Amino acid sequence: MYRAGIDLGGTNIKAGIVDENQRILIEDSVPTRAKRPYQEVIKDMAELVKKLLAQLGIGEDVLAGVGVGSPGTVDAAKGVVLYSNNFDWENVPLAAELGAYFSCPVGISNDANCAALGEVKAGAAKKIANAILLTLGTGVGGGVIIDGKVFEGAHAGGAELGHTSLIFGGEACTCGRKGCVEAYVSATALIRDAKRAAEKHPASKMNELCGGDLTNMNGKIPFDAAWDGDTAAKEVVENYITYLGEAIANFVNIFRPDVILLSGGVCNQGEKLTKPLSLYIKDKCFAKERAFVPEVKCAILGNSAGIIGAANLI
Amino acid sequence: MYRAGIDLGGTNIKAGIVDENQRILIEDSVPTRAKRPYQEVIKDMAELVKKLLAQLGIGEDVLAGVGVGSPGTVDAAKGVVLYSNNFDWENVPLAAELGAYFSCPVGISNDANCAALGEVKAGAAKKIANAILLTLGTGVGGGVIIDGKVFEGAHAGGAELGHTSLIFGGEACTCGRKGCVEAYVSATALIRDAKRAAEKHPASKMNELCGGDLTNMNGKIPFDAAWDGDTAAKEVVENYITYLGEAIANFVNIFRPDVILLSGGVCNQGEKLTKPLSLYIKDKCFAKERAFVPEVKCAILGNSAGIIGAANLI
Repeated sequence: MYRAGIDLGGTNIKAGIVDENQRILIEDSVPTRAKRPYQEVIKDMAELVKKLLAQLGIGEDVLAGVGVGSPGTVDAAKGVVLYSNNFDWENVPLAAELGAYFSCPVGISNDANCAALGEVKAGAAKKIANAILLTLGTGVGGGVIIDGKVFEGAHAGGAELGHTSLIFGGEACTCGRKGCVEAYVSATALIRDAKRAAEKHPASKMNELCGGDLTNMNGKIPFDAAWDGDTAAKEVVENYITYLGEAIANFVNIFRPDVILLSGGVCNQGEKLTKPLSLYIKDKCFAKERAFVPEVKCAILGNSAGIIGAANLI
Repeated sequence: MYRAGIDLGGTNIKAGIVDENQRILIEDSVPTRAKRPYQEVIKDMAELVKKLLAQLGIGEDVLAGVGVGSPGTVDAAKGVVLYSNNFDWENVPLAAELGAYFSCPVGISNDANCAALGEVKAGAAKKIANAILLTLGTGVGGGVIIDGKVFEGAHAGGAELGHTSLIFGGEACTCGRKGCVEAYVSATALIRDAKRAAEKHPASKMNELCGGDLTNMNGKIPFDAAWDGDTAAKEVVENYITYLGEAIANFVNIFRPDVILLSGGVCNQGEKLTKPLSLYIKDKCFAKERAFVPEVKCAILGNSAGIIGAANLI
């Protein structure tokens, strides 16, 4: 049997056909063009899956399920996207609408949950039952895997790890609160802090690496400048690691998982990121060395995680 | 069948025999005298249960299980108290040691987990499957019930909701970190903040209610003074409710439970506490009115929650 996984993004709909060994046999994408009526977006999702099946020469009779990872607040139990800011979607019956194109079951979940499930099924946490993934991108998504399954919360809108407080009354968050984890450890936040530091310290190498134009700032520049000895950049990087370490310590104290996974561009830093984080949380987690402290690792599947995870929702 | 529940406290060992309707048929307590060898404490626990059974005229053959709620870091799966600061306990094999006195199974968990389970089985969250309890006492314990069962975390030292950050770098916490939820919403923290405010504002009614001696400060005084219009006390109370609201919003965003329960002396404030908290979290939880926002309620079982919850561990 085969399963289809769809990663619904703001720019592209990515889909793949996944076999029982969690290999993606074929994948492709089409533009989302998110502002269309949702029925059209969903029709394109169905057609993309059917095209991939046809290219593989696989009939729908051996398709065990179709899963979708969607941004926004997803009611997985009801199959409804309650709200997605990117898409102007409200109460979109995604599972039912997509299910009309297939005879197999259709499941949906939040995209970060799918990425976490993908890494547990086939990636950095393979064969591990309890994992937490933080996606460090424009925002911060949280995926919680308990006993090998996605933990959604009792009601929709759980596992929103990025929207827990880190600094009460701090930086404004996209969710309307202040001081959320997302407002400090997203790539957006890192770039904001790097820009501020570069502005404050005109001699900082970060300005040079931006070619004198701070709109060129990205999440790599503060790390590059820091490893090169730049003091202002070092402070940005150290703060970033501290914020992320505090957030991870919180999630360890709550879930005490087998492993913490990170994904996003910042993971290109590899052990330069995960080593200081591991040291930091060893010192900060409740009961310290008396209790289990999980390893902090980078996710390894990249974009495939979302497809494999979505395929495993069913 | 009957079950025994034991609430192991720093001062007293409380135990009760619970029937299948979750009624405590009989209960009693003995002093813990915590600094003794743990074997003696555990022997007293066993003898107390056996005495209660004898008083009821119930044989051990109809005792289905014995459960213990213990302070500290508890490895429920292994039946071991990894660490308890109050008792100077480290790696105490509580379940095995107590089990030697009984032929039925023995289970252990953290005391806050037991209190949460008790409230779900017989108290403020009866017939509710997903609840979070915050015990607001000397410290802050967290009990997480998912699908009617205690959520311990994948490894021991999970569900420590009091040890998640609220104000990065803030007040020192007993766990060694700074700015934890416990350091702002425990009764200890409330009293600390009320003392500081009373000291800063000599005209505050809080000083009068303390009889001019701030060592008399308790968690009720700032509320009493605030309802009486005292400005300094109002600020203490408003800050307290804000801190607690932020913490609750975090736990809603993570677990999205059916209900949030609070216990501890501060719950004597009833709706004066829960109403503003409910309003606060409605505004702060992720996705606001688009997602389910749980009710905030006070626990109702008092000390019985720990006994009933412990009895239900088996």
